[in-house]
Amino acid sequence: MTTVGFIGLGIMGGPMAANLVKAGFDVIGYNRSQPAVDKLVGQGGKAAGSVADAVRDADVVITMLPDSPDVEHVALGDDGVLANAKPGLLYIDCSTIKPDTARTVAEQAAKQDVRVLDAPVSGGEQGAIDGALSIMVGGDAEAFDAARDVFDAVGKTVVHVGKAGSGQTVKAANQLIVAGTLELVAESIVFLEAHGVDTDAALSVLGGGLAGSTILERKGPGMLKRQFNPGFRTELHHKDLGIVQAAAREAGVTLPLGAAVSQLVAALVARGDGALDHSALLKLAEELSGRR
Amino acid sequence: MTTVGFIGLGIMGGPMAANLVKAGFDVIGYNRSQPAVDKLVGQGGKAAGSVADAVRDADVVITMLPDSPDVEHVALGDDGVLANAKPGLLYIDCSTIKPDTARTVAEQAAKQDVRVLDAPVSGGEQGAIDGALSIMVGGDAEAFDAARDVFDAVGKTVVHVGKAGSGQTVKAANQLIVAGTLELVAESIVFLEAHGVDTDAALSVLGGGLAGSTILERKGPGMLKRQFNPGFRTELHHKDLGIVQAAAREAGVTLPLGAAVSQLVAALVARGDGALDHSALLKLAEELSGRR
Repeated sequence: MTTVGFIGLGIMGGPMAANLVKAGFDVIGYNRSQPAVDKLVGQGGKAAGSVADAVRDADVVITMLPDSPDVEHVALGDDGVLANAKPGLLYIDCSTIKPDTARTVAEQAAKQDVRVLDAPVSGGEQGAIDGALSIMVGGDAEAFDAARDVFDAVGKTVVHVGKAGSGQTVKAANQLIVAGTLELVAESIVFLEAHGVDTDAALSVLGGGLAGSTILERKGPGMLKRQFNPGFRTELHHKDLGIVQAAAREAGVTLPLGAAVSQLVAALVARGDGALDHSALLKLAEELSGRR
Repeated sequence: MTTVGFIGLGIMGGPMAANLVKAGFDVIGYNRSQPAVDKLVGQGGKAAGSVADAVRDADVVITMLPDSPDVEHVALGDDGVLANAKPGLLYIDCSTIKPDTARTVAEQAAKQDVRVLDAPVSGGEQGAIDGALSIMVGGDAEAFDAARDVFDAVGKTVVHVGKAGSGQTVKAANQLIVAGTLELVAESIVFLEAHGVDTDAALSVLGGGLAGSTILERKGPGMLKRQFNPGFRTELHHKDLGIVQAAAREAGVTLPLGAAVSQLVAALVARGDGALDHSALLKLAEELSGRR
């Protein structure tokens, strides 16, 4: 039986670990705060008291952590994943972090017998609960094949997109498109309301044409009702757009619309709305038109 | 039998008129150049030698013209639609024009016994040929109900969105979202290529998540292959974004991302690519990153 060490049992990691238990994996979980570990045990998993405990006997280790420094610390730290890995370990990082951090981890792992995949996910808490995440995977094709059963337990659309770091690069593009589309829908709603249009009808006809998007479908109705409970917190999207900007600069790429929407997301965080769902870009759009 | 006068038998108007013939309407068509009229006659329609000829005996008149001044001229001119309308005429303008021009036409028509709908469409040449257009309709609900059979012959998603001018307002929002989404996808492709990612795989996984859109699905593959044959010409989208900006200014609405993408579309036209499909925003994005 394959033993999976799972580190980071938060909003996304918790349900992913539970789905691995359901799929028959022997899951041993670690989290900084204990309640998430207890919950996993209640779902049929095992408790680890430290990162080392979660890693020591694992065939596969998954990390799902907030940001690049967390992954550096947990993966490369003194008593971290690589320090405790048994030979042949498959290490999958599902966090959303900088592509160059992902490459650094892969390079360090290559010095010992550990295979690494960067595998950030999209689909939110509901996607994690349903085991229906989109997963964009960077790393060796052989490691990707070896991880297939694990990915199938947590994801629906799982695609190998290139060498180490590529998963993070695609996730960065994902976050660029998502933020931009949210802002376009937000600006459109303010525009339509200012003109006294029936916005429910308008959003349905917009969704049926070339302007249609998953954002319009999933987020539009909540935006019309001003429901901004997350979902995905604006402050996390702000962090991700920092990754986008840094990765673009590194590759010598300019992102005119990406830069503009990054500033708008930054403004939404600056005005104190970082804890709201990212669709709260509508609040800022209203304010910029004197409509709240 | 309902007689439909159809004025403007171009890329969109031609197939729409043909679908009305197929649906059993008695269609009499006018176009500035004769070949389009001859084509309609070959498809079972009748030829009009002037706007007046097309309007005189019609129960329904449809115009499908390039821009606001064309509609003003044809609708309100000395020998135009209103001047030749028989009492009770239903006049449907399917052109994409300024919302305030649409309101002016409706106000003029209200002075005589003519009902007007502004009914711009989305879906492109293929949508027109397939009779599968999205149609956003402004005007009185009673006129909308009276036009139902006509709309069903040319469209699939037909929605009444509000009073006179509202159809144009929603079409403006449509063009804002479409231009912005094209630019976001263009920037993402440049970003992914610069990082050496497998872009075919990347676009498929992006399409499966929250970044998914009709643009990504229909335009993404052609953009990867640099196929920029129209489709929808950039210079027409440039015109439409002028309408968006003017209508936003009129309502006191700011569109930060809309303004930015309007400038990029303007730059694409300025560099001489106005005749290419609007997905050619990718050419500009590459140039801005020194990648062509």
